[in-house]
Amino acid sequence: MSALSFKVDAKDPNCGARAGTLQLPHGEVQTPIFMPVGTLATVKTLSVDDLETLHAQIILSNAYHLYLRPGMDIIEQAGGVHKFMHWDKPMLTDSGGFQVFSLSDLNKITKDGVEFRSHLDGSKHFMTPEKATDVQISIGADIMMCFDECTGHPATHKQAGDSLRMTLEWAQRCKDRWVEREVDNQALFGIVQGNVFEDLRLESLAGTVDIDFPGYAIGGVSVGESKEEMLEVVDWCAPNLPEDKPRYLMGVGPPEDILGAIERGVDMFDCVMPTRNARNGSLFTSQGKLNIRNAKYKTDFGPLDPNCECPVCKRYTRAYLSHLYRCGEVLGIRLNTLHNLHFLVNLTADCRQAIMEERFPEFKRAFLAAYAEGDS
Amino acid sequence: MSALSFKVDAKDPNCGARAGTLQLPHGEVQTPIFMPVGTLATVKTLSVDDLETLHAQIILSNAYHLYLRPGMDIIEQAGGVHKFMHWDKPMLTDSGGFQVFSLSDLNKITKDGVEFRSHLDGSKHFMTPEKATDVQISIGADIMMCFDECTGHPATHKQAGDSLRMTLEWAQRCKDRWVEREVDNQALFGIVQGNVFEDLRLESLAGTVDIDFPGYAIGGVSVGESKEEMLEVVDWCAPNLPEDKPRYLMGVGPPEDILGAIERGVDMFDCVMPTRNARNGSLFTSQGKLNIRNAKYKTDFGPLDPNCECPVCKRYTRAYLSHLYRCGEVLGIRLNTLHNLHFLVNLTADCRQAIMEERFPEFKRAFLAAYAEGDS
Repeated sequence: MSALSFKVDAKDPNCGARAGTLQLPHGEVQTPIFMPVGTLATVKTLSVDDLETLHAQIILSNAYHLYLRPGMDIIEQAGGVHKFMHWDKPMLTDSGGFQVFSLSDLNKITKDGVEFRSHLDGSKHFMTPEKATDVQISIGADIMMCFDECTGHPATHKQAGDSLRMTLEWAQRCKDRWVEREVDNQALFGIVQGNVFEDLRLESLAGTVDIDFPGYAIGGVSVGESKEEMLEVVDWCAPNLPEDKPRYLMGVGPPEDILGAIERGVDMFDCVMPTRNARNGSLFTSQGKLNIRNAKYKTDFGPLDPNCECPVCKRYTRAYLSHLYRCGEVLGIRLNTLHNLHFLVNLTADCRQAIMEERFPEFKRAFLAAYAEGDS
Repeated sequence: MSALSFKVDAKDPNCGARAGTLQLPHGEVQTPIFMPVGTLATVKTLSVDDLETLHAQIILSNAYHLYLRPGMDIIEQAGGVHKFMHWDKPMLTDSGGFQVFSLSDLNKITKDGVEFRSHLDGSKHFMTPEKATDVQISIGADIMMCFDECTGHPATHKQAGDSLRMTLEWAQRCKDRWVEREVDNQALFGIVQGNVFEDLRLESLAGTVDIDFPGYAIGGVSVGESKEEMLEVVDWCAPNLPEDKPRYLMGVGPPEDILGAIERGVDMFDCVMPTRNARNGSLFTSQGKLNIRNAKYKTDFGPLDPNCECPVCKRYTRAYLSHLYRCGEVLGIRLNTLHNLHFLVNLTADCRQAIMEERFPEFKRAFLAAYAEGDS
């Protein structure tokens, strides 16, 4: 477990928010932090220079996707994904659990693992907790995730209960494999499941903490439940997770949800939404969401967000971004992506500052008031 | 004509090749030079930072495309295309002549101009030499081109003759408009036409030079004729163009053709091929063309071109570029584009060096011998 150390630098006495520092083999991460998603060993459209420009401290890759393409032989020959994609800062890999269930043509789940067909070519694969751990060890990210089952929404209490109990067994097997492989430069996080049921979340949390991991994630949110239900899940879990371990809310996303979860004590976030939205022209600004497809932006020669320090806002106009979008130019989605990710990474940096200064609730209130002004 | 000054810095006594310096309102350009094409106010996939990384000294935009999208009102409100796209170095605009004939649904050519329908929405437009000049004045590039007719290949002697004579009349009208508008920060180039007929090329050249422009282009090549025919056209034209004016071969392209034309005294080049090829995975290297789609590159952990100094070759492997291409990742076409353009810009810089050192023919021979090794 020497791969990771975590220190809480400050707590805002007015709420559950906290600022921390995560020491990882590839560097330091200051929390709260938003982690851009680089599914296929690339944060879509961006180079590693761009990631440095937007101050990304840690990015995600995805074990399911990399396992299928380019495949483990190539990742291993490359010496891991860091070298493969020329990124030398911290990285986290999702185990592929979520993707096996959401993307692949599913054949069969057993206690042992999951037989699935690739969503790309229909080829048959069998994934187990041990294999998912081995795959992530080959990829070589600083933080690996346990292989879990994520129930959809809605799920019955029985479905969610059966699923979390299997996930707990799998978590123990992932940990056993990680210990057996004597991996000293990669940490492994447990994942709390249990859908929208308080008793099940607490059961999952207790069981996962009992196995003992260097960090914990709250999984199975952003799968169709309401924002209120999502924050309720965080309310149940965050305060009951170990104070001295990092807490990661998987797959969240929208600025208002990130702020709500930080207020409740979450440290880490990821979501494909900012990159996906960028490709659709939907952009975050301090004055709310803006859709660059809107006709009024064709002749708007102001910056995308007057309060943003990113190179897109410093250099280009809404009119130019509108032109690029309308022409289907790749530079448009690239600039949109750079801005959206900068916005969320910068938002979490501002949250950290507010926490250090014990003014997180006012910061959140002021941000959301301005943010409510956006395009509907 | 104070917008442009041109000085021949050196001539290689072993051939027609020359090195020059072009002073333009937005900066200096050292020739021979390859100019990346930024049709719609963006060199596809690249930011202005990328253009600086690849040492682009001058880029192209296209009057036809910008006239249709975003339209002249927006370009004018932006204060010209330089400000619109945040590029502060030299630029050249194609007049739109070639595009009116090649892309639009053509309605009617008269001596006065061309009625055409937009290839985007079918809207009807009438373009004249005067209007094409006005459009380019609004765009604001350092170098504008005369509005010309470009005959296809094959064309009869009569078709090519009639066409060049109309183009000569249009060239006079473009010049008259340019003089009338008293444009002192944009130069205007004449274009020599005449297809693959020596007498017609010489007739067009004499007439164009007689009108007197700050620079001259050889147009109407790369439209279906053979490489040998193309170089023959250059042989007829280049030595007969004024020694003290820049010479621009429009729409060329492949390294071997650029070298052949430089040897014959051409100074400037542009082509969409390096950017288009990049999108298809076809890449230039010092060892010849390489197609990154080729299966053997999946496990090739060497650089794209071991002799290239661009950031793509310095950082990434062929295996990674292969992975990005196979996954349809935008970063792949962006890195391919950056490399291909760097390759051609750097090739023209190397040519300049060889000319200064009076060893251009050996340089060309050595380059082509190595270049012949590529994927077929």
